[in-house]
This record gives sequence, structure tokens and C-alpha cells, in this order.
Amino acid sequence: VTNRARILEAARQVFGAGGASASTEAVARRAGVGIATVFRHFPTKADLLDAVLADRFARLCERAGQLAATAEPGPALTELITEMVSDAPGKIALAEALTAAGGDEDGAAGRASARLQEAVGGLLERAQRAGAVRADIGLPELYALIVGMSRATAHVPLDPDTRARALGVLFDGLAPR
Amino acid sequence: VTNRARILEAARQVFGAGGASASTEAVARRAGVGIATVFRHFPTKADLLDAVLADRFARLCERAGQLAATAEPGPALTELITEMVSDAPGKIALAEALTAAGGDEDGAAGRASARLQEAVGGLLERAQRAGAVRADIGLPELYALIVGMSRATAHVPLDPDTRARALGVLFDGLAPR
Repeated sequence: VTNRARILEAARQVFGAGGASASTEAVARRAGVGIATVFRHFPTKADLLDAVLADRFARLCERAGQLAATAEPGPALTELITEMVSDAPGKIALAEALTAAGGDEDGAAGRASARLQEAVGGLLERAQRAGAVRADIGLPELYALIVGMSRATAHVPLDPDTRARALGVLFDGLAPR
Repeated sequence: VTNRARILEAARQVFGAGGASASTEAVARRAGVGIATVFRHFPTKADLLDAVLADRFARLCERAGQLAATAEPGPALTELITEMVSDAPGKIALAEALTAAGGDEDGAAGRASARLQEAVGGLLERAQRAGAVRADIGLPELYALIVGMSRATAHVPLDPDTRARALGVLFDGLAPR
């Protein structure tokens, strides 16, 4: 494990638990490296947050690839959406911290987010070709619905059953009419 | 028209156009009153933002009452949701400005928002009794979906057609199975 990977893993844990407002010092301590080592790999806190967020999007992208290879077209899409929405509160907290730290959408996280959107588009097309999802919707409206459920989950206290029922309404709405 | 009403109307226009970051001075100018008059009615900017936001929720509440009285149960609910989501970008900008100005959820806007949620619950029950909306969902998940679409509209550039198609998925998902 390289120092960079060790720092990223520590940052994921520290920002995940204590909120994205946790300090870079706490990340260094958890990683077992000096603060100078953190700053050598990630010169600013925005760089660190950007890398953690990009990693989170990259994992979801990987998961999209796995699902495309192993699951039926319909369930592959709904499972990925469910995982994206579950992951949303932490992701949005990180994105807000990144904005607050002066980061922008042109960084690694922004690029990884665009790749995830493409991956969702691939799963959508596949599900539509298989007749598992209605043919009259496109990626922009599906993405709006995913972003919406993600932001609702991040901003309203939503118990798992309520979230599951809300996603159920969404998935039923995606079914062919 | 009282000075208070004149100031509120001016604030609605000024905050609506120039964003909620517009100054109290700009509101006074638009209302044609002195800044001291604004501060007599609304001692802080948070008070003014709270009143504008409360007024916005109150209008939607009134609209819910009208729709309950004049429209079929199913369309009454979907029309109110459509109007809530259309109104969302301005409302969320005001809510964020209110938070930034030190306002909290216990003010007039918070109470008006709770009344709107109750009104949506009333329209939901009515639509469910009429068999226009599936019986197996409750207000919490419906509200999560509305909050979600509202936040998506506020945070993603969403053209009207895309928004309409996303709402269409949601409404089809609400239909009885």
C-alpha cells in the first residue's frame, strides 16, 4: 500500500465519520503519516476532498461495470440507483465541503462524476433494449430523478423503509407502460 | 396596501430577480419606503427573508385548498406537486439565504412549510380514497420524492421538457398498480 492510498483510505474514514469538516491533521494521524506527507500528496484540503470524492464516484462506476456483467438489465439499473442514493448523504457532504474549500467541478471528482453519469446511461440503454424500462425517457430526466432522490436523502431524515418506498415509486414509474 | 405588504411584495420581486443575496436597501427602494421603515417591520434581514419564504409557502397552501375544491382528486395532487416543483429554485435560494442570515426552521417559514406538508397529505388521502393514487404509500415517501424533485430542479439545469418527463415518471409510479 502506497502512502497515497493509505492517506486516501484514512481521509475516506475520517471525512465519512466526523463529517467533511474534519481536519487534515486528523487524516494524517489516522494514516500514520506526518502532516507534511499529506501535503506532499495533496497540497490543499480541496485536493484531498476532490480525491476522496473522485474515488467514491469511481467505485460506483466500477459497480456499474460489475452489474452490467452479472445482473439482468432491469435489476442492474435499479440496483445501481439504489446504491447511488444510499451513498448520497456522504457524497453530498463531501461535495459541499469541496465547494467550501474552493474546489470546482473541473477536478478529478467532476470527471469521475461525468463517467458515472455515462455508466448510468449505458445501463439505461441496456434496460430499455431489454424492454425492462420504458423507451420514452432519456438519461437527463433519469439523472434528475436520481439527483433528486440523492438530495432528498441528504437533506430530509429518511428512514430506510421510507427511502425504499420512495425508490419503489420511482422504479414503478420507470417500468414500461 | 399597508407598508408591510408593500415591503413584502418588493422583497419578493427583488429577492426573486437578483437572488436572495440582494440588499435590504434595494428592497426599500423598490417599495418606495425608507430603510428605517423596512427595519421597523423586519428588524433583521433574516426576518424579511423568513416572511417572504413563509408567504411563498402560504400561497402554495392556498393553491392546495383551491385545487381540493375545484379539481378531481388525482389531478389536484399532481397539479400541486408540479407547481411546488416549479416554484422550487426560488424557494430553495430563499431558504439557503435565510439559513446564511442566521434564520432557523422555527420561524414563520418553517410553520408555513409544515402547513403545506399537511395540505399535501390531505390531497394524497383524497386521491387514495378516490383510487387515483396507490394505497401503499404514505406522506413521508411522497414528500421525499417532492423534496427530491425540488432540489434536483434547484441544483441541475433542467429544461421544462426534461422536468415534465421526470415528473411523468413520478406520477406514473404513483398510479395504482
